[in-house]
Amino acid sequence: MIQSIAFDGDDTLWHNEGLFSMTQERFRALLAGTVSADELDARLLATERENVAVYGYGVKGFTLSMIETAIEVTNGKVDADTIFRILSFAKDQLSHPVELLPGVADVIDELAGRFRLLLITKGDLFDQESKIARSGLAERFDAIEVVAEKDPDVYRRVLRRNGIEPGEFLMIGNSVRSDVLPVLDIGGQAALVPYHLTWELERAEPPQSHDGYWELDDISQVPALVADLDPARGNGRTR
Amino acid sequence: MIQSIAFDGDDTLWHNEGLFSMTQERFRALLAGTVSADELDARLLATERENVAVYGYGVKGFTLSMIETAIEVTNGKVDADTIFRILSFAKDQLSHPVELLPGVADVIDELAGRFRLLLITKGDLFDQESKIARSGLAERFDAIEVVAEKDPDVYRRVLRRNGIEPGEFLMIGNSVRSDVLPVLDIGGQAALVPYHLTWELERAEPPQSHDGYWELDDISQVPALVADLDPARGNGRTR
Repeated sequence: MIQSIAFDGDDTLWHNEGLFSMTQERFRALLAGTVSADELDARLLATERENVAVYGYGVKGFTLSMIETAIEVTNGKVDADTIFRILSFAKDQLSHPVELLPGVADVIDELAGRFRLLLITKGDLFDQESKIARSGLAERFDAIEVVAEKDPDVYRRVLRRNGIEPGEFLMIGNSVRSDVLPVLDIGGQAALVPYHLTWELERAEPPQSHDGYWELDDISQVPALVADLDPARGNGRTR
Repeated sequence: MIQSIAFDGDDTLWHNEGLFSMTQERFRALLAGTVSADELDARLLATERENVAVYGYGVKGFTLSMIETAIEVTNGKVDADTIFRILSFAKDQLSHPVELLPGVADVIDELAGRFRLLLITKGDLFDQESKIARSGLAERFDAIEVVAEKDPDVYRRVLRRNGIEPGEFLMIGNSVRSDVLPVLDIGGQAALVPYHLTWELERAEPPQSHDGYWELDDISQVPALVADLDPARGNGRTR
């Protein structure tokens, strides 16, 4: 039944939101004398929400939004040294080692060969390709697709160009908004593997009930799920 | 002989480097009281050269490099208002209308149907997709590939996944470094259509002589070139 399994990258295969949190914590500390953490977070989120339409996702746009927010919350009094520190946060985050989440390598190995495996990841192309290369996982995927947005049209296009029928497709990811809802929308199946942090702009309500949607605790449950979906291929364990 | 023709985007189908020049001119004017245009250009280029390995190509990385340069050339004395102006330059450039180069739409129309047409463009994924959508040309291409870098491996991968043999492939673009050399390297053919501006980091010496390389004055010469390469398909005009 399931022929192709796609994994999201950020916060599904490797840590990502944790790095944004780390950078944002440094940003709060930098401006702690000027503005409360709560107000700074709220102002930054409002700036990001406005800028995402022009910058898209990723560290560079986040950094430009931090700089804009620093100028605004200080009423234009922020000094150049503070801005320079924000630039250095960006470079630190972009060159941070890629840390795989627990169990990821084993799960990919277990599924490889039995299923066509894809990596479908959203965000800044240069940064994503750099992370994919550093993850050491690139060779294990039959196809890697970096997309600017994950909506039904994008999934339809990715599946079409890889010759995949939606009914034979399972997406694994941590985002209801990006990895679950648009996949169900086009007739695919999706398993949510939550990460402990979710960016505010990525939040969405999970489907109340839906055939073809599962919530897992951990990526290591994926092989049992696909075995259960298609006992002929697996060991028929009940999920 | 040629079955598939790919076009570069920036400065081949639409103006791009001109917008960077416009933004850089505004940057010079902003800092004119502090530093000469020549020195500012040199410092900015040095910063970009260093940062391209971590930021990749595109307006957001360029903007972060302008901010870094502004801090450095003022010895940390630049004020927040100046930084804010630089941020506004970025937003202006990212939302600038996409202006097709003369003759582009006619050439694409003339070749469509007779050849498989691809768009292979380098840079920031979000910005490129936005420009492709606004160009009005997206529907005319059989495949669109946004890549982070244009080197032989990337061209090999793009051709493989589109089922194209290098010997049947012609690339049209304005950059010797990105559109010509790597394509010749993998056994494809390439036609250079120069743009009146070339970014310093994109400069390279054209091949001295090479089968399968042509320099055109204008994109409108492409149909005559492909007719000449394969008279059976065209009118056999001599180039």
